[in-house]
Amino acid sequence: MEIIQQWDNFLKDASEEEKETAALYLQSMKRKREGKNGTHIGALMGISSKFDEPGTLTMDIDNSILLQNSLDILHGGLTATLLDSAMGTLAFKLLPSDKAAVTTEMKINYVAKGIGSSFICVATVIHKGSKIMVMEGKVFRDDEVLIAHATGSFFIIPKK
Amino acid sequence: MEIIQQWDNFLKDASEEEKETAALYLQSMKRKREGKNGTHIGALMGISSKFDEPGTLTMDIDNSILLQNSLDILHGGLTATLLDSAMGTLAFKLLPSDKAAVTTEMKINYVAKGIGSSFICVATVIHKGSKIMVMEGKVFRDDEVLIAHATGSFFIIPKK
Amino acid sequence: MEIIQQWDNFLKDASEEEKETAALYLQSMKRKREGKNGTHIGALMGISSKFDEPGTLTMDIDNSILLQNSLDILHGGLTATLLDSAMGTLAFKLLPSDKAAVTTEMKINYVAKGIGSSFICVATVIHKGSKIMVMEGKVFRDDEVLIAHATGSFFIIPKK
Amino acid sequence: MEIIQQWDNFLKDASEEEKETAALYLQSMKRKREGKNGTHIGALMGISSKFDEPGTLTMDIDNSILLQNSLDILHGGLTATLLDSAMGTLAFKLLPSDKAAVTTEMKINYVAKGIGSSFICVATVIHKGSKIMVMEGKVFRDDEVLIAHATGSFFIIPKK
Repeated sequence: MEIIQQWDNFLKDASEEEKETAALYLQSMKRKREGKNGTHIGALMGISSKFDEPGTLTMDIDNSILLQNSLDILHGGLTATLLDSAMGTLAFKLLPSDKAAVTTEMKINYVAKGIGSSFICVATVIHKGSKIMVMEGKVFRDDEVLIAHATGSFFIIPKK
Repeated sequence: MEIIQQWDNFLKDASEEEKETAALYLQSMKRKREGKNGTHIGALMGISSKFDEPGTLTMDIDNSILLQNSLDILHGGLTATLLDSAMGTLAFKLLPSDKAAVTTEMKINYVAKGIGSSFICVATVIHKGSKIMVMEGKVFRDDEVLIAHATGSFFIIPKK
Repeated sequence: MEIIQQWDNFLKDASEEEKETAALYLQSMKRKREGKNGTHIGALMGISSKFDEPGTLTMDIDNSILLQNSLDILHGGLTATLLDSAMGTLAFKLLPSDKAAVTTEMKINYVAKGIGSSFICVATVIHKGSKIMVMEGKVFRDDEVLIAHATGSFFIIPKK
Repeated sequence: MEIIQQWDNFLKDASEEEKETAALYLQSMKRKREGKNGTHIGALMGISSKFDEPGTLTMDIDNSILLQNSLDILHGGLTATLLDSAMGTLAFKLLPSDKAAVTTEMKINYVAKGIGSSFICVATVIHKGSKIMVMEGKVFRDDEVLIAHATGSFFIIPKK
């Protein structure tokens, strides 16, 4: 059976929450098709990046039921995904064009509940070495409360 | 416009990769409807848990394009999601029924590329205190190579 | 044999480096006697604290052969000791008089060699919760190069 | 004034605790002179290493007032020193003779009070890569209670 038919069948009996979920997945597919995000998880989270000042990168996401754990709070793993994405993207931006960076370790302190309509992640540089870069990341709610703090190491490799 | 119509419109022009993605999203919605996973991210990752021996919890996932970063490797944030889920679920299982546990910190070492057809995460207990539990988590590829190692602290709270 | 006699015997044949070491140990004992440091390790490291502005604590130490590893660099464990002391002392200062704080976890990134004549450690607050405080610490050389960055969690307990 | 004279002067008026401290410092100087420890901090802590089975290194220390914080508990920084020493020594042992290893990061979970007459630290390998080694370390009391768990990354460099 064609995928279009399978979706139709599924959605015929869909609950309101399922319709909301289906709309979020469709939005993610559109973000990917439009090139707004390079990865599916970035599209799902609706990540939008800004690289205003040198040495700082900002990523915004809207909250959605897709991102929440069983307590209706932003999942700690997706908070980690946002932090890793922001720190890694900043590391990448600061490297010459023939280099890339891979995460070798990351530590996150979760300090407040991830609730509210949106989140903002700010990544900055702790140390820029020739082999390893160490980055810092912070995630804030829309009421400006810090919910998570991270540090991570990014190993510099030749880009293929 | 109805969500069913929106999906139809989108899928009419879908590329092969988009059809694959749509199938994965539909699979995730079915897992959630069938109660196989409590959270959307758990359903998307297709997480399946086993709690065989006391003090150990195992979670399996299949690899898919949804979970990969721009280098076609399991996204470090989703590796973190798997680790946090496994360690947190184990913490929860070991507590009396009137208690819950929240992640206060997690540190992950990424040691090999997340490639292959599936991954398995094994969580164990480092310390079970009355206020804080410390857990360990490891993620392996299907060729048994360790890709990530984590430790995390889980603060014990009264369950609402 | 009396300790005074034992020291005399040892120092009769002492090399120049041993005399320097003996002088450093004596200096440490004097710092302890004069109440400049509460702990022996604090006295040995010659830690001196300042608590100028609210929310920040600064600790200075002089470099010495006692603090170095086999590569003549500040030992990573003593860098950790300085960071733990500074973050813990700050946590303690910010609590009401009937509370104390114990370190539950600490993560350190070592980013440059600890060399030069002195080091300064600056501790600040990332999050002040009712159960757990999360602190940040940085260690700089006298040429202002950052050598280590840490985050740590301090669990708040009743003071005995 | 000669160092021998300075020690005599100081010890004439020494309290019992000061005499104990002076004896511990002298013991440390003897350990260093006898080549039992390569570093002063190793001698002060009385570290003794064993490398029995491949891939595991064990370090023992005796407890002493020198190692304690203001609560008479093994100082978290010295616990870190023991862990860093054990993990780093193991990393070093596993490398070819033209390579060395430097700590790039370490995270420690403190899970029980460091009390009792002695401590044992066991270091093992999590991952042995060509650029980075990841190690695990655990510290136990003499009653076999785990007091601290660590993971650390060691960057492999050419030995000078």
